[in-house]
Amino acid sequence: MFGARCLLRALRSCSSAPCPRHKPTAKLSVRDALGAQNASGELVKVQGWIRSVRSQKEVLFLHVNDGSSLESLQVVADSSFDSRELAFGSSVEVQGQLVKSLSKRQNVELKAEKIEVVGNCDAKAFPFKYKERHPLEYLRQYPHLRCRTNVLGSILRVRSEATAAIHSFFKDSGFVHIHTPVITSNDCEGAGELFQVEVMEGLFKTTTMTVLSNCPEDVELCHKFIAPGQKDRLEHMLKNNFLIISYTEAVEILKQASQNFTFTPEWGADLHTEHEKYLVKHCGDIPVFVINYPLALKPFYMRDNEDSPQHTVAAVDLLVPGVGELFGGSLREERYHFLEQQLARSGLTEAYQWYLDLRRFGSVPHGGFGMGFERYLQCILGIDNIKDVIPFPRFTHSCLL
Amino acid sequence: MFGARCLLRALRSCSSAPCPRHKPTAKLSVRDALGAQNASGELVKVQGWIRSVRSQKEVLFLHVNDGSSLESLQVVADSSFDSRELAFGSSVEVQGQLVKSLSKRQNVELKAEKIEVVGNCDAKAFPFKYKERHPLEYLRQYPHLRCRTNVLGSILRVRSEATAAIHSFFKDSGFVHIHTPVITSNDCEGAGELFQVEVMEGLFKTTTMTVLSNCPEDVELCHKFIAPGQKDRLEHMLKNNFLIISYTEAVEILKQASQNFTFTPEWGADLHTEHEKYLVKHCGDIPVFVINYPLALKPFYMRDNEDSPQHTVAAVDLLVPGVGELFGGSLREERYHFLEQQLARSGLTEAYQWYLDLRRFGSVPHGGFGMGFERYLQCILGIDNIKDVIPFPRFTHSCLL
Repeated sequence: MFGARCLLRALRSCSSAPCPRHKPTAKLSVRDALGAQNASGELVKVQGWIRSVRSQKEVLFLHVNDGSSLESLQVVADSSFDSRELAFGSSVEVQGQLVKSLSKRQNVELKAEKIEVVGNCDAKAFPFKYKERHPLEYLRQYPHLRCRTNVLGSILRVRSEATAAIHSFFKDSGFVHIHTPVITSNDCEGAGELFQVEVMEGLFKTTTMTVLSNCPEDVELCHKFIAPGQKDRLEHMLKNNFLIISYTEAVEILKQASQNFTFTPEWGADLHTEHEKYLVKHCGDIPVFVINYPLALKPFYMRDNEDSPQHTVAAVDLLVPGVGELFGGSLREERYHFLEQQLARSGLTEAYQWYLDLRRFGSVPHGGFGMGFERYLQCILGIDNIKDVIPFPRFTHSCLL
Repeated sequence: MFGARCLLRALRSCSSAPCPRHKPTAKLSVRDALGAQNASGELVKVQGWIRSVRSQKEVLFLHVNDGSSLESLQVVADSSFDSRELAFGSSVEVQGQLVKSLSKRQNVELKAEKIEVVGNCDAKAFPFKYKERHPLEYLRQYPHLRCRTNVLGSILRVRSEATAAIHSFFKDSGFVHIHTPVITSNDCEGAGELFQVEVMEGLFKTTTMTVLSNCPEDVELCHKFIAPGQKDRLEHMLKNNFLIISYTEAVEILKQASQNFTFTPEWGADLHTEHEKYLVKHCGDIPVFVINYPLALKPFYMRDNEDSPQHTVAAVDLLVPGVGELFGGSLREERYHFLEQQLARSGLTEAYQWYLDLRRFGSVPHGGFGMGFERYLQCILGIDNIKDVIPFPRFTHSCLL
């Protein structure tokens, strides 16, 4: 038998070379350079774009950023390096010594020994100007370049950290990650129905705190974009955890394998904007309550929560015995037969056989929720327009790139 | 200013209740129950499906599985619990004491005090039969139920672990995760072109070893499905790391922000099967070499590797100065103007303005690769048909669920 241990041996014997990421290398990201403790003249190489140039009589100061952090690395060079090519927007590779900075503004700086201009920047044609703060609406016209600005770079990094935090949250809670299909033959839920989720503090708080501790500067920068008067709105959103609920059959089906979650692109009408959106969905035992639901819809997915002062429902499927002993055997079967009849009457029995099957072959109570990932990012960053938290937004009549 | 620290305070003040996942609860997953060290009669609750029933004179043995692990939990009950409803496929909730097992087959077992049948299973109609080993082709007909079998459950768990390992690999290597659009207006690459990647050992080995150490039993089970004679093929695949290369513009554009990777559903023709596939893409400094590439295609993405005995190329864009000093300033500009002319001649200048822009506003050398995630799973598991490593496969004339 060709077992796991044998496979491990085969892999180990593939090559005796160490894994590439453990290779010692003189090349550093700006982030790593800035984080270097006790810099004492090590020879390193840094690549990035020039964010500012300051030329003095005998010294040339450059700020170089490679997108790995909000802060740029200060490069100090002899004025002999000065050239017209060393300009805002150009990409450079700098070799030199990483040293402690004498200024209090930064811990380390790079004493340049060699500066190579890798790519020139046509400053006249370049849509972003040196030292100018461009509004988000303006940046939106340049989806292929805007990630080089501070604010969009910050959003991308926060987005990445938030994604990782959501994955960790579910993994640590014992959920299995699944990939749900993007093309489906089922019209599993009416698009554009909005629900408000009251309780999902665990996910919301854990991930937000991870993001805050991993990229506080990026979050801080985004908050500068909050219009005056919106501060209260953001605090209100954060306190009330307004999230969008959604649900699909894939998560429900795979509940049979284990409690699971997905992180999947979806399409939906949302605030009169059609766009691709990412939804985080889970199916498992974290309790979730829904308020302001469309009463006429989805009677099978909802259960009245009588203890609640508001009209709330638990997002569970009532066809299966749900949260407690409220629904006994007879009611359960009654509901199953009701659905069976409804489907037969509409000629949908074949199309929804899978749904009936799930309920006659050892059904289980289950609940779930969906969270709009872009809404979550808007919420923690205070970014007003959803198009600014999506790298390449698609909306009506617009599919740039 | 409404900063990160202020946000953190606001979040903390939302509720003083601890995060749900830290709540002490008597409910255990089968995996956690099996892993309990020094079980000594704690009262716990376990939910799952009955995998086997063995009725003796005075004792009833059940095996219960909830999809959290390959191994099932043995439930020992008084024969008075015996009933027709406690049958293969039914879902149950068992309360009882978790104790050390006297048998050598398992460490712990659950001494049942209460057994509730949550969902009956219509055994006659249920397509999976007790103790029968169904071939993968047969299981494929029941995409909504097959995740309850051992082999598909194993694949789902391995898939989840592999996804997490790939995310960790890139995060640890300093990459930013990005979501690329699913709908695009660019025909960025010809579908179905196959390349073979020679070197990507870091990703391949690290993730595979993580999967092997996190779910060895699941991998072991999948290997049992390898047809005789395929063992050599699997070993060959593992030694040669055959992977599929692909590339899109989004990863390239966002390279400007940082080195990045994506994990995105894509469509493509592959081995005459059209299906959704997941591709892991990266853009950064991990060297990647491509062999057997279609010579006529993508001259701008390829660079000859003269040191290689085979005809290999590095997957870099030649329009920008790439791997070394081989391409000086003049050749670089020559190539840019060549492309500019080609686009103008084809009337494509407007559509590809973004591509030209990336090259005139501080271009940077970049390379990348794509890995077919489902092929990777096939490779480490030895699963012959790609449809069996995808939860809900889509192919010509088939979009079940």
